[in-house]
Amino acid sequence: MKVLVINSGSSSIKYQVFQMPESSVLAKGLIERIGEEKSNVKYSASDETIEIETKIANHEDGMSLIFKLLTDSKNGILKDVNEIGSVGHRIVHGGEAFTGSVIIDDNVVAKIEEYSDLSPLHNPANLTGINACKKSLQDTPMVGCFDTGFHQTMPEHAYLYALPYEYYKKYKVRRYGFHGTSHKYVYNEACKILGKPNANIITCHLGNGGSIAAIKDGKCIDTSMGLTPLEGLIMGTRSGDMDPAIVTYLMDKMNVTTKELNDIMNKKSGLLGISAISNDMRTLIEEKDKGNKKAELAIKMFCYRVRKYIGSYMIALEKTDAILFTGGIGENNPFVRKWITENLEFYGIEVDDKKNNTRGESIFSKDSAKIKLMVVSTDEELSIAIDTYNICK
Amino acid sequence: MKVLVINSGSSSIKYQVFQMPESSVLAKGLIERIGEEKSNVKYSASDETIEIETKIANHEDGMSLIFKLLTDSKNGILKDVNEIGSVGHRIVHGGEAFTGSVIIDDNVVAKIEEYSDLSPLHNPANLTGINACKKSLQDTPMVGCFDTGFHQTMPEHAYLYALPYEYYKKYKVRRYGFHGTSHKYVYNEACKILGKPNANIITCHLGNGGSIAAIKDGKCIDTSMGLTPLEGLIMGTRSGDMDPAIVTYLMDKMNVTTKELNDIMNKKSGLLGISAISNDMRTLIEEKDKGNKKAELAIKMFCYRVRKYIGSYMIALEKTDAILFTGGIGENNPFVRKWITENLEFYGIEVDDKKNNTRGESIFSKDSAKIKLMVVSTDEELSIAIDTYNICK
Repeated sequence: MKVLVINSGSSSIKYQVFQMPESSVLAKGLIERIGEEKSNVKYSASDETIEIETKIANHEDGMSLIFKLLTDSKNGILKDVNEIGSVGHRIVHGGEAFTGSVIIDDNVVAKIEEYSDLSPLHNPANLTGINACKKSLQDTPMVGCFDTGFHQTMPEHAYLYALPYEYYKKYKVRRYGFHGTSHKYVYNEACKILGKPNANIITCHLGNGGSIAAIKDGKCIDTSMGLTPLEGLIMGTRSGDMDPAIVTYLMDKMNVTTKELNDIMNKKSGLLGISAISNDMRTLIEEKDKGNKKAELAIKMFCYRVRKYIGSYMIALEKTDAILFTGGIGENNPFVRKWITENLEFYGIEVDDKKNNTRGESIFSKDSAKIKLMVVSTDEELSIAIDTYNICK
Repeated sequence: MKVLVINSGSSSIKYQVFQMPESSVLAKGLIERIGEEKSNVKYSASDETIEIETKIANHEDGMSLIFKLLTDSKNGILKDVNEIGSVGHRIVHGGEAFTGSVIIDDNVVAKIEEYSDLSPLHNPANLTGINACKKSLQDTPMVGCFDTGFHQTMPEHAYLYALPYEYYKKYKVRRYGFHGTSHKYVYNEACKILGKPNANIITCHLGNGGSIAAIKDGKCIDTSMGLTPLEGLIMGTRSGDMDPAIVTYLMDKMNVTTKELNDIMNKKSGLLGISAISNDMRTLIEEKDKGNKKAELAIKMFCYRVRKYIGSYMIALEKTDAILFTGGIGENNPFVRKWITENLEFYGIEVDDKKNNTRGESIFSKDSAKIKLMVVSTDEELSIAIDTYNICK
């Protein structure tokens, strides 16, 4: 079955076509700057890449162009769009309604709308993608895969905040967690590598956004992102955890609105805020190597926050088989992995420098270590394709 | 030397007279509801306790009454107030200016005033106590002991938040930590019990307010309270940690001001908010035993938060000698200590149920445990008296 995976943002559509169950990628691409004067279109199939600059007014036009590229007589991979057996949509917020991926029907659409106030930037954009797809594909089954779904197994004592209980019922305030498709995918891959189904693993997804999950017997029992993707780790431009009283203190001191402070915490903080240089870990490491102290401080704070989460999730798990790194920073940055895992022999964590520096090694702890250290490449699109195929096959 | 210790709140004065260096308590007491129609006065010396109800207009009148009681011909312990050799004042916020206790002079008073915007409820009240004391004692040396002082050894990567760096300089936004006199006192006591100076200890101060500190080689390297005492653990009425975006989300949803939301987070959340029954752990345990599910949930969330902090500070310390419990809940509640420390044998933490249930045992881990579990009674007043005596002797 050919599965189309769609990740629709507010002004972009990422797409990928998989041949399932083989998991091979037939074509993929991206449209950016939808609605602007010039949009960027990228399409790749069998080692050919096409880039186009053209005006794309809305998501519907964007999807039409994607189907045109996929069925193009020269570079296309389909004769007809009806060769697509199913479509998997990435949906950011599924609230408490969805514990896993589901066929999208009117009820599901209504729920995604309902949870838009918890994810005002993403859910409406995801819906736009669903609607644009429907226009061209009509009866092809579509599956919604939720960033929050995998985390719905958290127990009550982990997902509730210590606010008046009624806020949970009235305003839906609780920990939801995000990056669920990534955490689930790398967890399953790691269990295969370890030869241990249902292992206890701490999965560290470290990219420009970042989150950590504690996974016990195959179920997420805690994760660092909360009501929104702001909580937890220090990220490219997001602050992560801080004293909640800082929010009201700064609003009063700076005389800014809730929206303005949200923008600061989400877009001007994190690695960028501390370093005042960049939100990109690669740039910061280069700058640190040149002697920039603020860059070094930002990296140190980033690593220290990850270390502390690993410690708290070791306790949450009660027994830990492995600590796993994934995402852009987690997969490609041995220096960061080293800073996060060094000097912890007392707790059975022993990094093997040689393995850590060798690309392609999935386990980089010493053989003697009680807790394994791992690197596993994430693939959120493939994770969505697998779920979609399993539901529609 | 006789040392008077004063803890002056917005409408109260707690006082205690110590004979130093013997550390014996000669007298102690409390005035509450200063400025109200009827104030409550309590005075105890040599097993006699006097309670009076009278109108006390302000802190000056309160201090005058305290000196009158201390020099009373029948129940007093002094012939003359000048027998007091020095006075130790508890000061909540010393910002970055004070790393330890200091003689109070005009510069110190100016700094305490400067940090009042970080602690608007406490620092002005502390100053009122200093001024009221000066009126009666004139030249007796006075020492300021800061709740924040002990935590000033934290490294930059632990005390900074991942906000734009300039906020640290401009608005003094950083982690300060509180309960410093308590963490310092129990740490020193624990090192004596362990026979190991400069041990690595996680000190859990669990009372109606609560905080945890990671102390390495005698120095605090991290602590759970932050810019304000709101951050960190779930407390009697305080939420502790949560997604910072919840603050702006709730302000918008509920249409409340920064002050109103601060009140909710500080006074209506925590154990009280979750259980909707009480902020008192003793009441919640009684209710749980009667089958109340919300009470059980509140206790579980409280313990789980402490567990997670212990894990993160184990990693921060790199090696851990002991985990220590103090404060009203920490000292008197074996059930809570058990929930916090159970099922962690994988990491060298092994609770001995019999020792844990025996009052007066300072170590309650099994002999085989790699990390010791301890109970040490805190005494913030004595800690202030020791500092004051050492500076003035």
